[in-house]
Amino acid sequence: MRFLLLALMFFSCGTSTTFAQQRPASAGPADPKLIEDLIAANRILAMEGVVDGMGHVSVRHNRDPNRYLLSLARAPELVTAEDLMEYDLDSNPVRDPGRRQYSERIIHGEIYKLRPDVIAVVHNHSPSVIPFTVSNVPLRAIAHSGGFIAEGLPVFEIRDAGGLTDMLVNNAALGRALAQKLGGKSAILMRGHGAAVVGKSLPYVVGRSIYLELGAKLQAQAIALGGTVNYLDPEEGRKIEARRDYIRSWELWKRKAMGQ
Amino acid sequence: MRFLLLALMFFSCGTSTTFAQQRPASAGPADPKLIEDLIAANRILAMEGVVDGMGHVSVRHNRDPNRYLLSLARAPELVTAEDLMEYDLDSNPVRDPGRRQYSERIIHGEIYKLRPDVIAVVHNHSPSVIPFTVSNVPLRAIAHSGGFIAEGLPVFEIRDAGGLTDMLVNNAALGRALAQKLGGKSAILMRGHGAAVVGKSLPYVVGRSIYLELGAKLQAQAIALGGTVNYLDPEEGRKIEARRDYIRSWELWKRKAMGQ
Amino acid sequence: MRFLLLALMFFSCGTSTTFAQQRPASAGPADPKLIEDLIAANRILAMEGVVDGMGHVSVRHNRDPNRYLLSLARAPELVTAEDLMEYDLDSNPVRDPGRRQYSERIIHGEIYKLRPDVIAVVHNHSPSVIPFTVSNVPLRAIAHSGGFIAEGLPVFEIRDAGGLTDMLVNNAALGRALAQKLGGKSAILMRGHGAAVVGKSLPYVVGRSIYLELGAKLQAQAIALGGTVNYLDPEEGRKIEARRDYIRSWELWKRKAMGQ
Amino acid sequence: MRFLLLALMFFSCGTSTTFAQQRPASAGPADPKLIEDLIAANRILAMEGVVDGMGHVSVRHNRDPNRYLLSLARAPELVTAEDLMEYDLDSNPVRDPGRRQYSERIIHGEIYKLRPDVIAVVHNHSPSVIPFTVSNVPLRAIAHSGGFIAEGLPVFEIRDAGGLTDMLVNNAALGRALAQKLGGKSAILMRGHGAAVVGKSLPYVVGRSIYLELGAKLQAQAIALGGTVNYLDPEEGRKIEARRDYIRSWELWKRKAMGQ
Repeated sequence: MRFLLLALMFFSCGTSTTFAQQRPASAGPADPKLIEDLIAANRILAMEGVVDGMGHVSVRHNRDPNRYLLSLARAPELVTAEDLMEYDLDSNPVRDPGRRQYSERIIHGEIYKLRPDVIAVVHNHSPSVIPFTVSNVPLRAIAHSGGFIAEGLPVFEIRDAGGLTDMLVNNAALGRALAQKLGGKSAILMRGHGAAVVGKSLPYVVGRSIYLELGAKLQAQAIALGGTVNYLDPEEGRKIEARRDYIRSWELWKRKAMGQ
Repeated sequence: MRFLLLALMFFSCGTSTTFAQQRPASAGPADPKLIEDLIAANRILAMEGVVDGMGHVSVRHNRDPNRYLLSLARAPELVTAEDLMEYDLDSNPVRDPGRRQYSERIIHGEIYKLRPDVIAVVHNHSPSVIPFTVSNVPLRAIAHSGGFIAEGLPVFEIRDAGGLTDMLVNNAALGRALAQKLGGKSAILMRGHGAAVVGKSLPYVVGRSIYLELGAKLQAQAIALGGTVNYLDPEEGRKIEARRDYIRSWELWKRKAMGQ
Repeated sequence: MRFLLLALMFFSCGTSTTFAQQRPASAGPADPKLIEDLIAANRILAMEGVVDGMGHVSVRHNRDPNRYLLSLARAPELVTAEDLMEYDLDSNPVRDPGRRQYSERIIHGEIYKLRPDVIAVVHNHSPSVIPFTVSNVPLRAIAHSGGFIAEGLPVFEIRDAGGLTDMLVNNAALGRALAQKLGGKSAILMRGHGAAVVGKSLPYVVGRSIYLELGAKLQAQAIALGGTVNYLDPEEGRKIEARRDYIRSWELWKRKAMGQ
Repeated sequence: MRFLLLALMFFSCGTSTTFAQQRPASAGPADPKLIEDLIAANRILAMEGVVDGMGHVSVRHNRDPNRYLLSLARAPELVTAEDLMEYDLDSNPVRDPGRRQYSERIIHGEIYKLRPDVIAVVHNHSPSVIPFTVSNVPLRAIAHSGGFIAEGLPVFEIRDAGGLTDMLVNNAALGRALAQKLGGKSAILMRGHGAAVVGKSLPYVVGRSIYLELGAKLQAQAIALGGTVNYLDPEEGRKIEARRDYIRSWELWKRKAMGQ
């Protein structure tokens, strides 16, 4: 009887342990300020028209660079703290694997693996950017607000990595190919799809996403005038970005998006 | 006197019966959830700029595939449950024939007749789509959000079916011609007018309407860049649509449109 | 003393009488429903982006076709019943001549003189229409919502009537020239300036103003696609307008603009 | 002990005095109406899309033409009276030098130095204007609302003044070069950056900023039609501006921006 009880305890523990071993361990509770900013980032991107019902934004866990935080599958505008999940860099959730998840979360994980400098990632279907993902006219910077564009942004052609697909970057091979193509840049365009934007903080990825959208719109307008276009010199872009922060805009965006 | 009273009762009953016989029978009360979603669909289409004061959306009755639900003639943004009417597939109302009705409701009825797979229909004057209805440049898909466009959408030229008209599809012959031209596709463009969009549920027709509008805008922008455009491969479109749902967006749209 | 008092009374009365004789007589209080609709028309035009701080809308007095109602010089979005003034067809106010008035009210008066069928007039700087006022590419109808455009709308070149001016139609000669150029049409474009739109009621001028703006936008988009454009046949335009009303849209516009 | 106390008092006073001597003297409290209008100007520019998180607007101090008022570094939409700082024309603050300040405030100071007629200055990244700053197609006036554009606006190429920079006009030499290039005009375009707009009051700089943005949009649309464009004659522009005021629009803008 005693043996049976022990065996039972072992078995149930073992079961838990097995599940725990299959699932990555949590890095523990994240900084409440980071959580708050991640919620704000979701809503700002919606407010600014960079995402609609689709798209997502993540941030590395402040306690462990091998974990990142991302909402379950929900429109960014609706995301709350209860929706946030913790993932390892293979994009496995540390808990609640049964919740509906973004099928393209692998974009975040694979970029975090290859880019230790990256702290936050946005994936979006930025409407003014998409035309540049399918055109042989490359996206270039015409305004200092998009200085990071001046370095030249790569375009990910999913056909090169996966042939004729459903266009989703939803497995490790595609995610890795995307991350490799991104290289050391600030953003990558995705053909017929959108973009992935990276940065050293949430204000950076949000700011870059907003000014990538704007930059694409401005360039299209400049082209439509029919004359020659005087693009930013890459050196101008470097100097702009060397002193860039998004402090002033972040205050505005966050207050508006959070209704304060 | 007694006879007269009976005769009077008979006559009045007879009159009612006659009216009831002339009018199609009701399938009974529809699922409240369906009603709620139809109201939401009306408001979402307005909120997203796919319809203005004009345009309409219908859904098949959940109790009878030969009946559909559609508002009386009212701007979609204002539609409430009290405005909903039940129609047979000849687009005759089961009651209240004196209420002001959409003159183009025949679009819905004729499509439901030819397309048993279709559960919901939208007719709109989608502003970015209209230019493609009058241009010899065909609408094509450049983004995965408009995967259903990749199959190629037909254009209905009302002059072929009716000569020089007031452009309204407001009789059975025109409605049938439109439904036939639609064939098995997800949507049909209407020259100088707008579009009709079909799907297997209200979220599908709403989602397709929104992404048809967006897809047209994106393609126009891509063309305006002046370079070559890399369109979606039809196979990509098929794979995208095979796994498409609008669950995440529908949650967002409905909550916003219903002010929740 | 008594004489002096009488003389004084006579003089003061005389002064009033003199003023009253110089000023046109009022047709009396207008229909409250008309007042309400004129306020609504002002706000709808602002809500729909057809006017900004400038532009104005008038309606003929329901008691006298030789009087019309128009706000004092105020942004349409802010107009209230207290701002409405009554004018004769020479655009002289029946009272309060010292209030700040629209310098271009003559547009309304001169059109009412030449067009007995016209009951309401809008003058606006409709942003999508202005490019067509300065281009040799004429505005034409591509969509049934702008059926009245299919008849071909004249363009008023103020240089023909007044040489190099401040572009304002602010005297009787210019107003008359504009009204003559309008002829029997539904609207006239004003070079480098905007448009004047006429109709048989406030819903008509508001509806035409909104769909003139939209029609211009749609045509520009169709042209930008780079292919041929299939314009509305004038006969289609006539048939569309023969059965046009703005009942459904007016209900929407008015409820939204008046916050109901 | 007494000596020590006195010495301490002297030292602390001396420190204050020293700081006060290094800092310019204040002209005293500004007119509350001017403060109110400066707050309104900030919010109007944001409401009208002329500025986003960046950009700024200043006004000369009503008591001293050698002082101007400008917010500390904050998004215009959020600016309150507490944020306003007083600067001399070298753009040194009269107090609180430790607060975060706009790095490009020098634009305001240098323009005020060279243009005694200028009472207010806006610096913005006006989205429709930027394409004209990088195109060899010059901005020209097509509509009377942008009459001040008809005189021809200069473009500041920062490379001429500073070579390859971070594009910011953030030192006296660049500010002076910009102000000189502006000359006697109403606005100057800044290549790859935005514009600086000047005027004789806050309503003028706000109005010109709004109609500069609109004018650029309208011209781009006119060009896109593909035909010839009939621009405003400079004489028309002069006559328009000779009688221009922004009274009616200012009432609208201010009431909306201040939520009244």
